[in-house]
Amino acid sequence: MTSSRQLHLGAFMRPVSLHTGAWRYPGAFPDANFNFAHLKRFVQTLEAACFDAFFMADHLAVLNMPVDALKRSHTATSFEPFTLLSALAAVTERIGLVATASTTFDEPYHIARRFASLDHLSNGRAGWNLVTTSNPDAARNFGRDEHLEHDERYRRAREFYDVVTGLWDSWADDAFVRDVESGLYFDPEKLHVLAHKGEYLSVRGPLNIARPVQGWPVVVQAGSSEAGKQVAAETADVVFTAQSSLEAGKRFYGDVKERRERLGRPRNHLKILPGVFVVVGDSRSEAQDKRAKLDALVHYESGVSSLSIALGHDVSSFDPDGPLPEIPETNASRSSRERVIELARSEKLTVRQLAQRLGGYSGLQMIGTARDIADEMQQWLEEEGSDGFNVMFPFLPEGLDDFARKVVPELQRRGLFRRAYEGTTLRDHLGLPRPGNRFFKSP
Amino acid sequence: MTSSRQLHLGAFMRPVSLHTGAWRYPGAFPDANFNFAHLKRFVQTLEAACFDAFFMADHLAVLNMPVDALKRSHTATSFEPFTLLSALAAVTERIGLVATASTTFDEPYHIARRFASLDHLSNGRAGWNLVTTSNPDAARNFGRDEHLEHDERYRRAREFYDVVTGLWDSWADDAFVRDVESGLYFDPEKLHVLAHKGEYLSVRGPLNIARPVQGWPVVVQAGSSEAGKQVAAETADVVFTAQSSLEAGKRFYGDVKERRERLGRPRNHLKILPGVFVVVGDSRSEAQDKRAKLDALVHYESGVSSLSIALGHDVSSFDPDGPLPEIPETNASRSSRERVIELARSEKLTVRQLAQRLGGYSGLQMIGTARDIADEMQQWLEEEGSDGFNVMFPFLPEGLDDFARKVVPELQRRGLFRRAYEGTTLRDHLGLPRPGNRFFKSP
Ligand SMILES: Cc1cc2nc3c(=O)[nH]c(=O)nc-3n(C[C@H](O)[C@H](O)[C@H](O)COP(=O)(O)O)c2cc1C
Ligand SMILES: Cc1cc2nc3c(=O)[nH]c(=O)nc-3n(C[C@H](O)[C@H](O)[C@H](O)COP(=O)(O)O)c2cc1C
Repeated sequence: MTSSRQLHLGAFMRPVSLHTGAWRYPGAFPDANFNFAHLKRFVQTLEAACFDAFFMADHLAVLNMPVDALKRSHTATSFEPFTLLSALAAVTERIGLVATASTTFDEPYHIARRFASLDHLSNGRAGWNLVTTSNPDAARNFGRDEHLEHDERYRRAREFYDVVTGLWDSWADDAFVRDVESGLYFDPEKLHVLAHKGEYLSVRGPLNIARPVQGWPVVVQAGSSEAGKQVAAETADVVFTAQSSLEAGKRFYGDVKERRERLGRPRNHLKILPGVFVVVGDSRSEAQDKRAKLDALVHYESGVSSLSIALGHDVSSFDPDGPLPEIPETNASRSSRERVIELARSEKLTVRQLAQRLGGYSGLQMIGTARDIADEMQQWLEEEGSDGFNVMFPFLPEGLDDFARKVVPELQRRGLFRRAYEGTTLRDHLGLPRPGNRFFKSP
Repeated sequence: MTSSRQLHLGAFMRPVSLHTGAWRYPGAFPDANFNFAHLKRFVQTLEAACFDAFFMADHLAVLNMPVDALKRSHTATSFEPFTLLSALAAVTERIGLVATASTTFDEPYHIARRFASLDHLSNGRAGWNLVTTSNPDAARNFGRDEHLEHDERYRRAREFYDVVTGLWDSWADDAFVRDVESGLYFDPEKLHVLAHKGEYLSVRGPLNIARPVQGWPVVVQAGSSEAGKQVAAETADVVFTAQSSLEAGKRFYGDVKERRERLGRPRNHLKILPGVFVVVGDSRSEAQDKRAKLDALVHYESGVSSLSIALGHDVSSFDPDGPLPEIPETNASRSSRERVIELARSEKLTVRQLAQRLGGYSGLQMIGTARDIADEMQQWLEEEGSDGFNVMFPFLPEGLDDFARKVVPELQRRGLFRRAYEGTTLRDHLGLPRPGNRFFKSP
């Protein structure tokens, strides 16, 4: 019954566009990333288009790039996720709200509490993108000289997840009786003290907020290492991932779903959503022109440094307007080098265009008419490359409006995407069950 | 020109009523403390009444009381402050939003960022109630067996404040040029790396969010020890305090304002707001009846334990309906014992009534008609007992609506309170200047 499956769509919204040139695009809002009035409009457009969720990545430091590139980036500053998503919760009704929070640089009591609070404020629409924090500069903002070592980060993450979910279960769903007559506010039999003492964490509990509306807010994971994929299989409801092609996507999809099944848990209770950069045009060439125009807005010097890193070779002396010369073998990652050379060849890009592509955004993309994009998405779904996508918009508002007005109706016509929300919580949208309370039977 | 001074009014809203019996009062919303629809209505009423701020206390554990009392309390759970206030920011325009955050159990990078984010989302309405955390149970939710020792808590708090304000100053006010033509998003000369290394904290920076709208969000402090008052004088824009009488209030007011002047800073840039519990009636006796009715809703056993603690003597064998017998001298705090005996005498309370008063709320109160209350508030203002109040409502919505509809207009008629907001930020409402950036001159 593969064909009856439907796509799940998230919107990757921090930054509102991942593309470095986005803020300079004609008609774009240069401050879109940091202007609440704009963000409110965006989320309301996404909700009208029935997106599953607004997804907010997060970093605990300014981006770790040289200041000469940073100063050209519209993502140097942004809102903090809990504050922004709570404000957006108050101006929306149905769309899910996924915040990134770090298991390395925060405390489980705070994290459990904030997600529970966001879940209550939004009537069950919160999600937690559980990260161990990718930007190593974060460590120095939190009293450490160095980032925790990779495996240790994931061991702590695993324990952190157990503590947070344990705290969410502090109260039975029916603990609060609020009996005005007798004066009993809650039933003390329905309160559980966690008293966790583990390798990294020691947390007593109980949490000082009622169990979340969703039982547990939706857990999203984006790790890609072995440890990351394993934590995802064990803990995640949704896996957000960067894939470079449908082939790679299918391998990843199979790998993570199998890990899940080996744990004895249903594979369809884990949704895999690759990030995809979508540029829509009324014709294919219009879409390609938009992409080229956008890339051209990337400052050449920023592009040169990204390209040099990807090739493991300094390209600053190359003729910007000539083709990419032969590059000797280097220490750079072989796959990244080959990917870039192949990209230059297949799209016949000059050094400048290639540099601007890499300095802008060079991951998975879908470019074309609404039908082209729907075709590709359908193929991913039907061939089990994904359960949907986390969509990245090229520039705002136009790129988002185009997707909502052109691609979504095409997906709906094909029966691949909802025409209206059927439930009220993010779990409902994703087709995920509400977890039981590990300490109390359901009433 | 004392008479031209105006009152500043905050609303103490977590819990929405401090009184243990509040949720059982006829017509009250039993879940008011944990229902966003109600809280939204309350804050909008407060805004229509031109309150300076909505003030949200906070605790990092369930209240530290025996479970037999806790189970009768409507404050066992609540929203988390940043998430709630951000949601309220989206449904209000002018009222200030003060969140409590702990310098003992959180990280300065997180705190600086969240307040900056709330300040931007609300267009300059954020305030930080800086606490070292009073509930000792919090320690066990954050990996510690014991609370930090009192003086050390305040030393860390002082350093924490320096780091947070330093992080707020990471960016000059005019750092973000967003020049679409040249592609320059910010001026790197206007970015400062804090690189703080101190006794308790080591934080590099810069903060990944632009300088707050208010420069620095308003800082509120509620410490009452020597160390607490000193930190308040050094750091606070607003002091929130529990005072038992006008005489005590005047002493406290003089003490803190003098500390401020000794630091060479203007005394009127520090506002002192005692908490006051206000019950309004159309007649004095109606107000007193409301208070008595409310106290009667406190469960006798909860009251008995509060009264026993205050007297240092087990009162459970006393006749509940008789007067308070002689109490021998004990180890209990002399002042608390005497205050309670005096209360029983002056109001001719039975043991039950006294216990219920203590189990409910027994701090500073103003009870009477709108004119009585305005008289008392005016006296405090004119005799320099305070610069206004943090008002605590007895039950919701009625107690809040009464204050907004009856007391506020009376204060306005006397020229003691604004009829409309004059500025847009919380600093504007409080008459506090916007702090300069310590690293950059104003443009
Ligand atoms: C699409 C996507 C989004 C991500 N978002 C974040 C993020 O917001 N914050 C963060 O610290 N890391 C983020 N990451 C990084 C992952 O959490 C993870 O650290 C990274 O994929 C490397 O995987 P590994 O840690 O398993 O090696 C993201 C990764 C992907 C693929
Ligand atoms: C009106 C008022 C409100 C307070 N709110 C909080 C609060 O929300 N959270 C908290 O941990 N402490 C709160 N406190 C406690 C103070 O921060 C402080 O710890 C207490 O007044 C004792 O003072 P000291 O620490 O200087 O001895 C409050 C105190 C007062 C007087």
